[in-house]
Amino acid sequence: MSKSFRGRDVISIRDFTRDDLITIFKEADSMEPYAKTKVDILKGKIMALMFFEPSTRTKLSFEAAMKRLGGDVIGFSEPSMTSIAKGESLIDTARVVENYADIIVIRHPNEGAAKAVAEAVDIPVINAGSGALSHPTQALIDLYSMWKEKGSIDGLTVLFLGDLKYSRTVRSLIYGLLNFKVNFILVSPELLKLKDEVRGQLKDAGVSYVERSSLTSDVIREADVIYVTRIQRERFADPMEYERVKGSYRLSLESLKEAKRDLIILHPLPRVDEMDIELDKTAYAKYFKQVFYGLLVRMALLKLILS
Amino acid sequence: MSKSFRGRDVISIRDFTRDDLITIFKEADSMEPYAKTKVDILKGKIMALMFFEPSTRTKLSFEAAMKRLGGDVIGFSEPSMTSIAKGESLIDTARVVENYADIIVIRHPNEGAAKAVAEAVDIPVINAGSGALSHPTQALIDLYSMWKEKGSIDGLTVLFLGDLKYSRTVRSLIYGLLNFKVNFILVSPELLKLKDEVRGQLKDAGVSYVERSSLTSDVIREADVIYVTRIQRERFADPMEYERVKGSYRLSLESLKEAKRDLIILHPLPRVDEMDIELDKTAYAKYFKQVFYGLLVRMALLKLILS
Amino acid sequence: MSKSFRGRDVISIRDFTRDDLITIFKEADSMEPYAKTKVDILKGKIMALMFFEPSTRTKLSFEAAMKRLGGDVIGFSEPSMTSIAKGESLIDTARVVENYADIIVIRHPNEGAAKAVAEAVDIPVINAGSGALSHPTQALIDLYSMWKEKGSIDGLTVLFLGDLKYSRTVRSLIYGLLNFKVNFILVSPELLKLKDEVRGQLKDAGVSYVERSSLTSDVIREADVIYVTRIQRERFADPMEYERVKGSYRLSLESLKEAKRDLIILHPLPRVDEMDIELDKTAYAKYFKQVFYGLLVRMALLKLILS
Repeated sequence: MSKSFRGRDVISIRDFTRDDLITIFKEADSMEPYAKTKVDILKGKIMALMFFEPSTRTKLSFEAAMKRLGGDVIGFSEPSMTSIAKGESLIDTARVVENYADIIVIRHPNEGAAKAVAEAVDIPVINAGSGALSHPTQALIDLYSMWKEKGSIDGLTVLFLGDLKYSRTVRSLIYGLLNFKVNFILVSPELLKLKDEVRGQLKDAGVSYVERSSLTSDVIREADVIYVTRIQRERFADPMEYERVKGSYRLSLESLKEAKRDLIILHPLPRVDEMDIELDKTAYAKYFKQVFYGLLVRMALLKLILS
Repeated sequence: MSKSFRGRDVISIRDFTRDDLITIFKEADSMEPYAKTKVDILKGKIMALMFFEPSTRTKLSFEAAMKRLGGDVIGFSEPSMTSIAKGESLIDTARVVENYADIIVIRHPNEGAAKAVAEAVDIPVINAGSGALSHPTQALIDLYSMWKEKGSIDGLTVLFLGDLKYSRTVRSLIYGLLNFKVNFILVSPELLKLKDEVRGQLKDAGVSYVERSSLTSDVIREADVIYVTRIQRERFADPMEYERVKGSYRLSLESLKEAKRDLIILHPLPRVDEMDIELDKTAYAKYFKQVFYGLLVRMALLKLILS
Repeated sequence: MSKSFRGRDVISIRDFTRDDLITIFKEADSMEPYAKTKVDILKGKIMALMFFEPSTRTKLSFEAAMKRLGGDVIGFSEPSMTSIAKGESLIDTARVVENYADIIVIRHPNEGAAKAVAEAVDIPVINAGSGALSHPTQALIDLYSMWKEKGSIDGLTVLFLGDLKYSRTVRSLIYGLLNFKVNFILVSPELLKLKDEVRGQLKDAGVSYVERSSLTSDVIREADVIYVTRIQRERFADPMEYERVKGSYRLSLESLKEAKRDLIILHPLPRVDEMDIELDKTAYAKYFKQVFYGLLVRMALLKLILS
């Protein structure tokens, strides 16, 4: 991605340089005064949501971001609406929609869908999650949350906990973190270890990381950030296996006894029971603040691209 | 509810004093000039709809109210979207949504859902129907319709017709009417009589009421207001029983022969066949005007709470 | 339809005179500067979408048109929402909705639904497709596309290709074209020939037309406009029959070898495989531009009716 964001697509977190990321973070900071009111920066602009997968959370976040900036929103987001693509190509749908809007935000089950749409239309496209691999705006939010809460990302030790294999947010976030000097601690069941391909990228970048199959106090002690993800039952062929391991990856107040005082806990949400509800009341818990940071980041992106 | 409405929740009709109600009525009156145009009173404010039950009617009314006041709307309202709550607690969903909006309007099948959300978030919450018991904004609309059409609520004789047991609008409206000096006539099949709990409240309040199991001219003659509700077939274990009784609770032009000249008929809608369609053309019929009053009342509430 | 469009309904293409059509075309021309920005012409106006059939495309087009003009949109469009009509009459629903909006745009599976609603409510109603017969705004878009691309409609030879029997856009367009001096070429399988009723109208109007059951170079050579429609497999009782004929009605680059240099191809979209994708790159292809013209036409209608 070039210096100027105007009119650019957001397809993968890997399109962003370190400078790009810092630009976005600073713009996100400047959005804070507008996040509970409304400005006219994007008055007259229309964002089209093309959500082929349901995602209330991401949809509401983009809608609120656009509306706080004075813009407007059209689109579809019901799973049933994927019927619009039945018989019609995704590209045709996008070429229709581009006549109605100034930017397209797309979520699609197929890897590469956002990229294909971006190549077919003349207006900018933001990938709001496509396929199993990429979710760039979530990664930007996670990175901004660390930058904002810790002052800087360089030098942090980030502990990833849970499903490191299938989570597209983990994958996108790790690629984003490679722009900074970060130590990685990877804690997951054997079955859900980071894919070789991503581990290869860590090695290539000369990044220090340790892998563990359980959450022990020696690694907790090191962490500046714990990034928790959900372990989905359906990943396990044998339900007994799931029941056996899930407890080991649950974050409890007790497990944080030796944690750093200024540890922060992030989570892309929704969560099920991978964290003790007690944690919500601690200063560690930043996952709802992270939602607010998400609004700021999406406002920043929309402003940079459209204004 | 205190004098000032600013930032307050609307959970139950029982939270309102008589003075509160009069304040809302007067505010609703003042909304009339804006109901067919748009002002900028709530410009920059966002309302989030969290509708876990489908309700096109209530949803459209709140949306129109917010937009006529210059505000904006985000949210979800499809039953399928209750999947967002699958695995995630209602409270977590609400704590996410509060980052995107200035007020939450919630509809939920569980009693207590609106209250629980109001306690969990920092922004105001309006209950747009929760569980089998409460629907406070509908009660406000019904009360305002009487106040507006009759000049005052004190001294009115209100005849309730139909299902007085399961209707949450009847229950909420009766509690609202207890703030005024009203005579009650309760006409319903044995099976659908007012619950003892609500009848107990009438007695405690020293309110005069008569109960009937059929709609006869002697009670019609007394009524200033007839509040009609739908009798649902599925309330009867024996379908024959339903067929046998339903005619007795149907309001016809014929049945109003001895009614007061200035009688008004209200109905929360939708209706099926509990009223003669002939009635639509009479001066008694106020149920579509009641829809318009609903817009005014919801505009008034939003203005009082948010501006 | 009278000279003045203010407050008028749009139910059938047959309500428009030639002068009406030219007025709309000129208004659509004047909308072009606003189609990628926003004006305040309809600020404070609310459009209610009542979509009882899903139609993402038409819905987005109306929404964008209203929002580009500064207006706002409420409504429902999910098929599941037809449940709102369950037990409640369409007319009651419309009489509720008219309290919330300045104009209703309705799409409904039943012929006559739009007309019935227009008669029941006081605000203007636009038919966005009802039943098997009429889709007036699509016809306006098709007519405007010809007028805009060719400078005039009089004197054009228009070739209709595909399903001329069941397509409501074909039917509405032909009625619209009867306001101009046009030559018709009708190419379809025997099974999908124009209905006698519409052919009778052509005869009554003294219009010249030829009918063919295959797409041959002699008719292609004459065409100024080819209007392509989709042939649906489910129209054929025998699937083999469908497979046998479909190729004969497919438009290929090869088949246009002898076409006029300034031929234009229109298609109401979505398309499946009735056109060679190669055609997209040619100057003949106007079907995506037609989408943009659709935005202009709907903006023009809304402005003429509401401002």
